[in-house]
Amino acid sequence: MKSEERAAVLGILYLIPTPLGDTPLDAVLPEETRRIAAQLTTFVVEHAKTARAFLKQVGANLPIQQLSLLELNEHTRTEQLEAVIQPLLTGVDVGLLSEAGCPAVADPGADLINLAHRHGITVKPLVGPSSILLAIMGSGLVGQRFAFHGYLPAKPEARASALKALEKRSEQDDATQIFIETPYRNRAMFETILAACRGDTWLSLGCGLTTGGELVATHRVEEWRKRAFEIERSPCVFLIHRR
Amino acid sequence: MKSEERAAVLGILYLIPTPLGDTPLDAVLPEETRRIAAQLTTFVVEHAKTARAFLKQVGANLPIQQLSLLELNEHTRTEQLEAVIQPLLTGVDVGLLSEAGCPAVADPGADLINLAHRHGITVKPLVGPSSILLAIMGSGLVGQRFAFHGYLPAKPEARASALKALEKRSEQDDATQIFIETPYRNRAMFETILAACRGDTWLSLGCGLTTGGELVATHRVEEWRKRAFEIERSPCVFLIHRR
Repeated sequence: MKSEERAAVLGILYLIPTPLGDTPLDAVLPEETRRIAAQLTTFVVEHAKTARAFLKQVGANLPIQQLSLLELNEHTRTEQLEAVIQPLLTGVDVGLLSEAGCPAVADPGADLINLAHRHGITVKPLVGPSSILLAIMGSGLVGQRFAFHGYLPAKPEARASALKALEKRSEQDDATQIFIETPYRNRAMFETILAACRGDTWLSLGCGLTTGGELVATHRVEEWRKRAFEIERSPCVFLIHRR
Repeated sequence: MKSEERAAVLGILYLIPTPLGDTPLDAVLPEETRRIAAQLTTFVVEHAKTARAFLKQVGANLPIQQLSLLELNEHTRTEQLEAVIQPLLTGVDVGLLSEAGCPAVADPGADLINLAHRHGITVKPLVGPSSILLAIMGSGLVGQRFAFHGYLPAKPEARASALKALEKRSEQDDATQIFIETPYRNRAMFETILAACRGDTWLSLGCGLTTGGELVATHRVEEWRKRAFEIERSPCVFLIHRR
């Protein structure tokens, strides 16, 4: 069978972003993203419960209980991915949903997408909100070069060392260094940055992006130290740069 | 004057993404992004001509010739930024537009945004398409850690060295390394990657993203070598990873 014939009977894997918080869908998702999500009947999701709530909001064409939701999360073993990909191999289009934001960016899903490529399945990333991207845009720091590091170590000393290493790298590469933290540790992270980083290093915060509580602020560390700023327990993206 | 009072009379700086090609707006921009773009009267743009075409498409409330378009591009000197920011200081909301994609991400605008932060102006990044983000999503390569490097050196030898350095870094950091190239050099870049990188390194291409000619493909370099793939002269994002 020629590859064009095979591709014709395979499903398409759509990568469907979801809102970053309790935000109206028309603020963060183009109509096409919502239209495709509403038409699909089979999804790969992190948690079925939140996925159902999103699909209800998006106006799924089928009753929610008739949709097929396959869970893929940190408990999914590599061997199980072949099962998850089966619908695509039989010609069914599938939507990959993240809990919040863009699938496979600081979120599970990359292994499934890689496997889809191995099977010659068309992968179609759709437009939607990414806190990382919005934070870079809003920061006013260098956007020509940047690096995203996910989570830094949780222990205070290792966290301080990691921050100093990122500070150094941002200077060497002239590139913004980006990381995230679980909201309940925001305050500890913020305090470690103010203590460990140099006064003239730039620190930008992108917190609660696209939500009612959005904050986008950029100052040098020495200015942040002077402000009695109380960081909230909302999802935050941290960006630092030295130049 | 207290800072809350000052903020009340300042304008908001909206960061407005634009389509990556000749794509219907509802495929790539949420209604809110289009609604805000249509309501604003003052814009900072890279090139007035393409900005006018976008604002016509978006359905600007005022006749296009009555909109105020200030140009900001590689010719803008730092001293001129203060003039560009004046409308915001007098309470006028301003939209920052990129030629394609997200302002200040691999595009001009970061210095203006940084200056806006210095003046206490609220910066509001809006949702839209980013070829870099879509390419990471679609690649199936590691999305937990990644680095964007902009353009690599144009000269063949320096380009090959840069690629080898990125390959090494992707292995050390377990992070996807991302770069772009001007379309007419896509072929030279692609050939250098196949020649310079190791056979088991992953190479993903995200070309013409969100357009009719979209291609998202991921293979190991040794597999790419076997394919008689002809890369097109469309905007492409290149991603490599070793693991």
